[in-house]
Amino acid sequence: MPRLKHYIDSTPFTKEELMHIINLSLTLKKCIKNGYYPQLLTNKTLGMIFEQSSTRTRISFETAMEQLGGHAQYLAPGHIQMGAHENLVDTATVVSRLVDIVMARVNRHESVEIFAKHSSVPVINAMSNYNHPTQELGDVTTMIEHLPPSKKLEECKVAFVGDATQVCVSLGFITTKLGMNYVQFGPAGYQIPDDRMKIMQDNCEKSGGSVFITENVDEALKDADFVYTDVWYGLYDDERSEDECKEIFYPKYQVTDAMMKKAAPHAKFMHCLPASRGMEVTDEVLDAPYSIAVDEAENRLTTIRGLLVYFMESVKGDAAVVEQAKKELSELLATI
Amino acid sequence: MPRLKHYIDSTPFTKEELMHIINLSLTLKKCIKNGYYPQLLTNKTLGMIFEQSSTRTRISFETAMEQLGGHAQYLAPGHIQMGAHENLVDTATVVSRLVDIVMARVNRHESVEIFAKHSSVPVINAMSNYNHPTQELGDVTTMIEHLPPSKKLEECKVAFVGDATQVCVSLGFITTKLGMNYVQFGPAGYQIPDDRMKIMQDNCEKSGGSVFITENVDEALKDADFVYTDVWYGLYDDERSEDECKEIFYPKYQVTDAMMKKAAPHAKFMHCLPASRGMEVTDEVLDAPYSIAVDEAENRLTTIRGLLVYFMESVKGDAAVVEQAKKELSELLATI
Amino acid sequence: MPRLKHYIDSTPFTKEELMHIINLSLTLKKCIKNGYYPQLLTNKTLGMIFEQSSTRTRISFETAMEQLGGHAQYLAPGHIQMGAHENLVDTATVVSRLVDIVMARVNRHESVEIFAKHSSVPVINAMSNYNHPTQELGDVTTMIEHLPPSKKLEECKVAFVGDATQVCVSLGFITTKLGMNYVQFGPAGYQIPDDRMKIMQDNCEKSGGSVFITENVDEALKDADFVYTDVWYGLYDDERSEDECKEIFYPKYQVTDAMMKKAAPHAKFMHCLPASRGMEVTDEVLDAPYSIAVDEAENRLTTIRGLLVYFMESVKGDAAVVEQAKKELSELLATI
Repeated sequence: MPRLKHYIDSTPFTKEELMHIINLSLTLKKCIKNGYYPQLLTNKTLGMIFEQSSTRTRISFETAMEQLGGHAQYLAPGHIQMGAHENLVDTATVVSRLVDIVMARVNRHESVEIFAKHSSVPVINAMSNYNHPTQELGDVTTMIEHLPPSKKLEECKVAFVGDATQVCVSLGFITTKLGMNYVQFGPAGYQIPDDRMKIMQDNCEKSGGSVFITENVDEALKDADFVYTDVWYGLYDDERSEDECKEIFYPKYQVTDAMMKKAAPHAKFMHCLPASRGMEVTDEVLDAPYSIAVDEAENRLTTIRGLLVYFMESVKGDAAVVEQAKKELSELLATI
Repeated sequence: MPRLKHYIDSTPFTKEELMHIINLSLTLKKCIKNGYYPQLLTNKTLGMIFEQSSTRTRISFETAMEQLGGHAQYLAPGHIQMGAHENLVDTATVVSRLVDIVMARVNRHESVEIFAKHSSVPVINAMSNYNHPTQELGDVTTMIEHLPPSKKLEECKVAFVGDATQVCVSLGFITTKLGMNYVQFGPAGYQIPDDRMKIMQDNCEKSGGSVFITENVDEALKDADFVYTDVWYGLYDDERSEDECKEIFYPKYQVTDAMMKKAAPHAKFMHCLPASRGMEVTDEVLDAPYSIAVDEAENRLTTIRGLLVYFMESVKGDAAVVEQAKKELSELLATI
Repeated sequence: MPRLKHYIDSTPFTKEELMHIINLSLTLKKCIKNGYYPQLLTNKTLGMIFEQSSTRTRISFETAMEQLGGHAQYLAPGHIQMGAHENLVDTATVVSRLVDIVMARVNRHESVEIFAKHSSVPVINAMSNYNHPTQELGDVTTMIEHLPPSKKLEECKVAFVGDATQVCVSLGFITTKLGMNYVQFGPAGYQIPDDRMKIMQDNCEKSGGSVFITENVDEALKDADFVYTDVWYGLYDDERSEDECKEIFYPKYQVTDAMMKKAAPHAKFMHCLPASRGMEVTDEVLDAPYSIAVDEAENRLTTIRGLLVYFMESVKGDAAVVEQAKKELSELLATI
């Protein structure tokens, strides 16, 4: 199978491909932690298109490009004319002529799909209303770094607590693809939709993993190696009020220290952040020694480095043309 | 004649100087397309001042700086204090002490002139209400890449259809300067003003080019090698409604495939973009094989590279001072 | 005493430490003015957090990072989720995992203190409502470059005219720390508060400097080597109207050429900029040959370079780990 050009969704990728990106990420992390910055993206430019504000994603992409020798352009809402004076297709066509790779955080998943379709360079989905595929990779990388003693990744159980956000769905996609055991503990009406469950079940058939949804806390948390939660307020452009959130999820789906005690004794707590402290998670849990949420945030950077290196396309230059151009250039510069 | 410091308007430049910048641009493009990035702007900083949003111009300047080893700072409206807590003269004086070159996209042409007057570093006009001189150069570069078989640039006819925007005026300036034949096909009240026509006519006297304005479509399009249009909505800060636009220009001044058939058989369609599809141009034209609008957009980057290299001033360093400073520096660093 | 990690306030630093940073800054300036850019911050990333707009500070930090081989990320209000979806402590914890050094311009001094407390990387205060410690260093550096003939820095008198802004307070902190003579000429109610005066008086006891406040123009300006002023409108988030300003400070505290004549004959005029021309200073003074306000603005860049080099922490890499990682990396890259 030829290598895919874009990273919009982890679903079309094989377990081996995703593990390749993760291993690449871990190796790059080891280099940079020890002061060696592989200059693999020298002179390359990333266009970052944001329809929403972002902390971790934006900083991670920008830092990753710079550490690897390239540069990231922050194209915020209102900075470019997409959606105002220009339609998405034309923006995609043109922007992809001016940069080497694009990342887009969009309100509707369809937008990043259209963008990729019309882009001449690779496009990375930096979160949509459907999924969050760069988060997935960082999460699994963090689990690999915090594996329970003498347990393989495939033997681990991941319990997601709360609303079936795009982060919940993405985590289900990758854990089932990699052969892990995934459960969502969430209330009816806020559970993973059937079409996404179908993808996870198909993954499990190939990988030997498992997936289920439950409203029973003991069943969900039993033997869980990783307990994960996300905010309750829903998507940025259609947020629920704090009162509505509490009505739906509180107190049953708040991750507390008591809930953590229902998981495996070595269980780690994870959160994609930002967190609404006192809502989906208590301070006591987020700040506990078993919380690896900050390591997880750092691994956004880790895996985004790997993704950028993996997806950047190399230029096939013609050495003879370069030699001729260098000669012309030096003549032209001499007469300025 | 000494080299001019700023690029505010192409009018004070000779044909030879403009062609030099274009040739430099084409050579740099050849280098980079083949994977060789001449590091001509290493450690140099461009300040980008925008009073309006921009896609092509902003991305092009930022990518150009990075590809050539330098860096661009995006100074958006509200990011700096110009016009709020500080007047334009003071901002120009100070900003030019902190960066190596400046580009400004301004609402009033006078602003970029004042900025240049008070700047100690070169200033490039990245579009005003009067002209769009970086667009001009990209447009001619695109024409050179798409010359009709066995025709010289000077023999080509360029037909601009629609409103006499700053892009229309700029295109008139450069085509007449280079000895080409230029016509605006636009309605009375929306035609190139007399003072701009005077400049184009003066250009023609020297260059052997020609220029005229007409409301007759056949006269305008006859034998045209390039058909060009721009949006109808006018300047950003004083836009016409869609209804007003249609009242004035529709359907007579919409570029359709039928209109393209009135031009030379090999005629190419151009548009500075963004386009209002279905207004000044139909989808059928913009997406036709004869449309070179996307190549034209890419050549914004092409010629902005050339402009940055051409206008960047080099520092005359004193080697003895550097040696002494290096010695001091290593002593100071040793004691941190 | 171990080296301090953050630069939130100059008060905990010794005279020797501050002079070290200034000397480092002057040496780096000499290098760069002569075309040599010491690449001391290669691959390093600065996160710039702004709660207010800024011209000089933002451009200076970004240019400084680029000139020294690194990169600065502009994190403007609304670009990241601090204060919206995330509290300050969590943002500090996470951001500091993703960049190498942070600067923050905040509305409340407490914010930058909290940020520093929870940051794993160095934090530089780029102005708060309490002080402006990067401005201080640039101001003293400018004074050193414009010392009166045959006078030492410690022998100089600095007269600050007008409102006791954070710039006035910061200037008092550093001049008294360095053993200079400082006076604020300002009306009751707008004078340096007692707690700040206490710090300055303590500084003087150690340094041999002096400090006082007066409403007498002759006493304030007598023999002053540097006359300094700042805007009257107060803090950005709680500004006084122009009428209120004039009521309080005009005409007595406006720096005019007549007032400058009361200072030493060689006296220089300084202003942190932006200036409200015709309010705290006349055009005649700001544009006079004795005005060094633009040199002072340029020295924001000068000393920010020094600060970044001084505070950046170096990575202690393990060469054996790097060798192993390089080997792994080349294997992983070969199979993409």
